[in-house]
Formats: sequence, C-alpha cells, structure tokens
Amino acid sequence: MAGSVKNLAILGSTGCIGRQTLQVVRNLAGRFRVVGLAAGQNLELLSAQIVEFKPEFIYYQKNENSKLVTQNSKLLSMEEIAAHPDVDIVVVATSGKAGLAATLAAVRAGKKIAIANKEPLVMAGEIITREAQKNGAQLLPTDSEHSAVWQCLNGETMPVKMILLTASGGPFRNFSAEQLDKVTPQQALQHPSWQMGKKITIDCATLMNKGLEIIEAHWLFNVPVSQIEVIVHPQSVIHSMVEFVDGSFKAQMAFPDMRLPIQYALTYPERLPNPELPQLDWTKIKALTFESPDFKKFPCLELAMSAAKTGGTAPTALCAADEIAVDLFLKEEIKFTGIARLVAGVMAAHQNILHPTLDAIMEVDKWATAKTLEIYRQDKKC
Amino acid sequence: MAGSVKNLAILGSTGCIGRQTLQVVRNLAGRFRVVGLAAGQNLELLSAQIVEFKPEFIYYQKNENSKLVTQNSKLLSMEEIAAHPDVDIVVVATSGKAGLAATLAAVRAGKKIAIANKEPLVMAGEIITREAQKNGAQLLPTDSEHSAVWQCLNGETMPVKMILLTASGGPFRNFSAEQLDKVTPQQALQHPSWQMGKKITIDCATLMNKGLEIIEAHWLFNVPVSQIEVIVHPQSVIHSMVEFVDGSFKAQMAFPDMRLPIQYALTYPERLPNPELPQLDWTKIKALTFESPDFKKFPCLELAMSAAKTGGTAPTALCAADEIAVDLFLKEEIKFTGIARLVAGVMAAHQNILHPTLDAIMEVDKWATAKTLEIYRQDKKC
Repeated sequence: MAGSVKNLAILGSTGCIGRQTLQVVRNLAGRFRVVGLAAGQNLELLSAQIVEFKPEFIYYQKNENSKLVTQNSKLLSMEEIAAHPDVDIVVVATSGKAGLAATLAAVRAGKKIAIANKEPLVMAGEIITREAQKNGAQLLPTDSEHSAVWQCLNGETMPVKMILLTASGGPFRNFSAEQLDKVTPQQALQHPSWQMGKKITIDCATLMNKGLEIIEAHWLFNVPVSQIEVIVHPQSVIHSMVEFVDGSFKAQMAFPDMRLPIQYALTYPERLPNPELPQLDWTKIKALTFESPDFKKFPCLELAMSAAKTGGTAPTALCAADEIAVDLFLKEEIKFTGIARLVAGVMAAHQNILHPTLDAIMEVDKWATAKTLEIYRQDKKC
Repeated sequence: MAGSVKNLAILGSTGCIGRQTLQVVRNLAGRFRVVGLAAGQNLELLSAQIVEFKPEFIYYQKNENSKLVTQNSKLLSMEEIAAHPDVDIVVVATSGKAGLAATLAAVRAGKKIAIANKEPLVMAGEIITREAQKNGAQLLPTDSEHSAVWQCLNGETMPVKMILLTASGGPFRNFSAEQLDKVTPQQALQHPSWQMGKKITIDCATLMNKGLEIIEAHWLFNVPVSQIEVIVHPQSVIHSMVEFVDGSFKAQMAFPDMRLPIQYALTYPERLPNPELPQLDWTKIKALTFESPDFKKFPCLELAMSAAKTGGTAPTALCAADEIAVDLFLKEEIKFTGIARLVAGVMAAHQNILHPTLDAIMEVDKWATAKTLEIYRQDKKC
C-alpha cells in the first residue's frame, strides 16, 4: 500500500475537522485524491473546495437560495458517497447525529472509516461495530484521544488493563460552583488547547465530551466501560494512555493539533513527515500535571459515565438531550449549569432498551429531543 | 509460543539484575525453567539459588576457598552455558565487560538474549549486532530506558525521528560545582529512583550511564547517535520516549522497578500480570518535569556522547577508563569530579580505530585500563 494514492470522501468538509483534513491532503501532495465532498450549508466554502479538489461526487443541504459551483461533480446522497466503490477512506467529520446513516452505509460497504464524529458510535456503537466486523470495514479513530489510544495499542495484544483518557479539564477547571452558574456562551467557546466546532467546545467545557469519549472508546477498542478512566491533564500534551496487564503504561504525546490524528488515520499504518504540523518542544514543557476530575462541579461527566455503564439506548438519550441543551445554552435560553440539569431530567425519565435496533435508537432520539424541550419549557414556567 | 515454558540461563545470577530476574521467574510460576546459572564470588547465594532452581549447568569464579552446593548441576564456562542447545533465553546480567565473551557466544548460537549489561554492546556493538543478524539471534533490551524505547517501537515502522532517553539526573542534579567536588562514595551510592549495583549507581550519579545508554540504544535500535537525545526527568516515571516522523511521541511509563523491563524481555511479545510489581498511582503523581542535562556539571555525559559520535574503539576506551575511575572513587582514592578528569585524560590520549576487530577492542581495553591508572598515579604525584 505504501505510496499508493488513496481516494477520500470527506463528509462535513466545510466544518472544522473537514477543513483540517483538506489541509493534510494539501500537505501530503500526491498521497490522496478527494473523490467526494459533503457539506451542510456553507456553500461558499464548499464551492471553493470543489474548484480546488474537483471531486467526482458532492452532497450539500439544498434550500431555495442554494448557489453552488458544482463543476462536473455529480450530486449524490451522503450515504451513496460513503458507499461508492471509488472511495477507499470515508472521513466522517459531520457534527452530531448527522453522520449516523452515512457511517452505517460506509460500514456496510466495508470501507475504511476515519471517524471524527463521535455521536454515531455513541448512539449506535453496537450496530456499527457488529456491521463493521461482518463487512470487513475498519474504523480508524480520529479523535485525538482515541488516536492516542490506537497508537499506544499498536503492536500490542489485548486485553488491556485500563484506558486512561486525558481531559484538559476545559476552560472552567478552576471555577467555583457560583462562577460556573454565570458562565456565558462566549466564555465557554474559548477552549484552552483545541480549535473545534461550537457544539464540541461546549461539551468540552461541561466535560460531557469526555463522557462521550468513554462510550466511543468502549466501542472502538472493545474494552469494558469499567476499564476506561478519565484523568485531568491541563497541558493537553499527553493525549491519552493505555495501561497493559503487566502494569506498563504507554502514552501518546504531540502538540495539540487535530491534523496529526487526522493524518495518522489517513496514512495508517504508515507515518509521514508533515512540516506544516507544529512540533512539541520539550525545552518549553516544564511540567505535565494530573488530577482527578471533579464530578460534583461537572455533573455531565457523571451523567455520561452512568449512561455508558447502562448501555442500550441510554447514550442516545444522553446525546439527544445534550444536543438540545447545548443549543439552548448557546442561544442564552439556559445557564451553563442548566445543561446538566436538563440532561439529568431526561435521563431520569428515560426507559432503557438494551441491544436496540436502529429504529429504536431513532425513536429514543426523537423522544429525548422532545423531552428535553418539554423540561426546558416547564422549568421556564416555574 | 503462548504458554510454553522457556528455558533461561542467567549470567550474573547473584547480582542485582540476576536476583530480580529470579524474582520474576518465581512470580510467573510455570512460565520459565532456569537451566543455567552463572555467578562471580557470592557462592552462598549461588548455592541457595542452585538448591531452589536446580539448574542443569552452573558457572562460578573458582578460588581455593570455594565452597559451593552444586547438587547435580554440571560445571560449564559462561560461554558454554550461553550457547547451550537447551537454553532459549540468555539473561546477560553480568557487570562491566565480564559478559562480553558470553554475549558473543549467545549471539553466535542464535539465542534470544535479554541484555541488561550495557558494556558488551558499548564496546562491541558493531560485532554483536552483525553476528546477531547473521545467526538469527534476537537482542531483547532489558535496561529500563531501552525497554521503554522497545515498547514504544512495538508495531511501528522505522525510521524514527528521535529517541529521547530520560535521565533522573541522579542524586546530585541540583548540586553546585563545589558540592560535587566533595561528594563521598556513600552519598553517590544513594540513587533517588532505582535499586542497582555499585558501578552503575556511580555511573548514574556522573551521568556517564546515560551516555553509555546512548551508545547502547544506537546499536539496539539501529538509530544514528545524532538522533538520540537525553532529557532530564527527575520523577523517573517516563522511562524513555520515541518521536516518530509525523511528530507524534510515544512514552512508556511505569513505577521504577527493574522487574518490569526484565519481565517484558522474558515474556515478549506477550505481557503477563504480575501482582508483585508495584503499580503507578496517578493520583499521587502531581507533576512530571523535564529539563536539559547540564553538560558542564556532568562532563561524563559529554565525554560519552563524544565517544558515541566518534565510534570505533572510543566507547571501549571510555568504558575501560570509567570502570577504573569509578573503582578508584569507591576506594576514596579520587574525588567524584576526578572520575570525569581521568576519563577525559584517557580519551585525549586514545588513538581511535574504526570498525575494530574483537582483538583490537580487547587491546584498547587493556591500554585504556593501564592509561587510566598511569594518569591517576601521575596526578597523585603532582
């Protein structure tokens, strides 16, 4: 495979991860051909990407005002692009649950799937991993933490003793409960280490994201939730660690930049030099520190861990409730601390279904979305 | 191989690494059979080991007072034990150059060799690695740093960008030049992190050991000396790191205990749980720190790095001079700072031979030993 050109389809190409994927493609000239691009509503950027990369297939969310330079690109659905025989690697860089159907289509077509969007695995991890195994699809972890775990597992035999997902702790690690109550969307959108989309940046601030990562790691690496822990490491130098059965740990480290895990997923099992990537400078790293997460101040982490342990449709209910709650917070309809309260309300009302079908998952998603809004409206009245 | 019993020969069984190897054998009952034991003059302990492990072959340094319980064990030379067809893995846990001939014998017999004694590789790395390749022998790194690098390289493709050997910095990391001048053997024998033999403990205090490790890493991993760096990390949690061509780093971490790298070498590619090994506790690790080594205060490191770059017989001259100088320091004949002065004097006088034969290496060893004593006597007269 070394040196051969790989055909990529990038779902969510105008988002944060999509744009960084295209940067990697530019930097590793001659290694990849972009055959598919799918985006939401940023048609200006998508047009520019189409002009630059000349993909065979495109998808975008049409509306009456859509103006798009499509050149000779053929319009397909995201699922059709994900499953197309010309595609070697599908990069799932969509946001929220938008990527679920396309991920399933890619898995069923036996593709390599660089998965940067955690909701599909969180909601339907059991179905996706089962279908992947059945169809010879390969899930390539692309979140920085999961890429770190994946790199640490390279060449090792399973089972492992423990996966330690590191968390920066978010921008409010040292805030008091009173301060957390007054956090504004503007404050929450400033992440100390990473450049990311809005939804995930808020999830990082509540630590919900770290909980979702536990569920993602559980499915990606087939490790029980009880053997996945979170450790706060504010410098974001160690991206995660694995403890092996003999008590030896391996950690992966790098300058925090999403292009590295994206590139690793695309070039795996090779590694390639990329002079555009910022380098870790050990003379500037004075200390790496570690602390336990504060579950009291960040109840979303506990809610997510509880959903992870419960399994079934609990993670779906969690995801749906969180998506609505974060949106309400960004619109300044609820407080920062209201996110956890809304999600907790939904989780308390959720009737779990173990080993759900995709239909059951979509039903719970719909129910939890409605339930979140219902609790929000009730709260507002009080 | 999983589950099969491996036959071990332990050269230097009464030393620090030898004793810890036997602890691992005890802890992993049923995995290993000790078929050979070789020791120097601690015949009381060797007798006890013979009674416990019932080896087929033994070696010891005879003298007129030797009293040894040999039971039914056959007396062989170290070289004969190392090359014996009944032996699967030879553990080279001798000290200084004593293990060189046996290491070569093991390599020529195509054995797996757990190499915990760095001098054979430092002196004759070119010959040992060439013979290993020719005879299908496998060198299993057993120093904690080299085990760390080896674990990080697991499943990865070469070349790598950089090997970073971590150094605790020794007990005198924060000493002034004046304080260093007054260091006693007793002080120098107190290592902050590791339990080791006397010679290597002093080498850790002068940082000579870290320089020898660069040479060892160069031969074990076929990485140019220019791509091997030393970084001071006083907590001894990270045992070494590898930087890959894409800028990603991997680090191996564990509670500092030599039994883990010994066990890894013996069980490789498997890992086995060993409840006797102390565990890292992340809740107790507050900070991992890093600093550049101070070449001015620790000139032995620079002398070793210079010998590493020079290659040929320079590392042999370095080793021989250091062995004598450390001995003189332990006997309180020279100061702690005198070790570097003696070694520097020998290195300045050394005429390098590139790609030396074993005979040439042994000649240089003899010459450097004599030269060290000569400089010492001259200095004394002044």
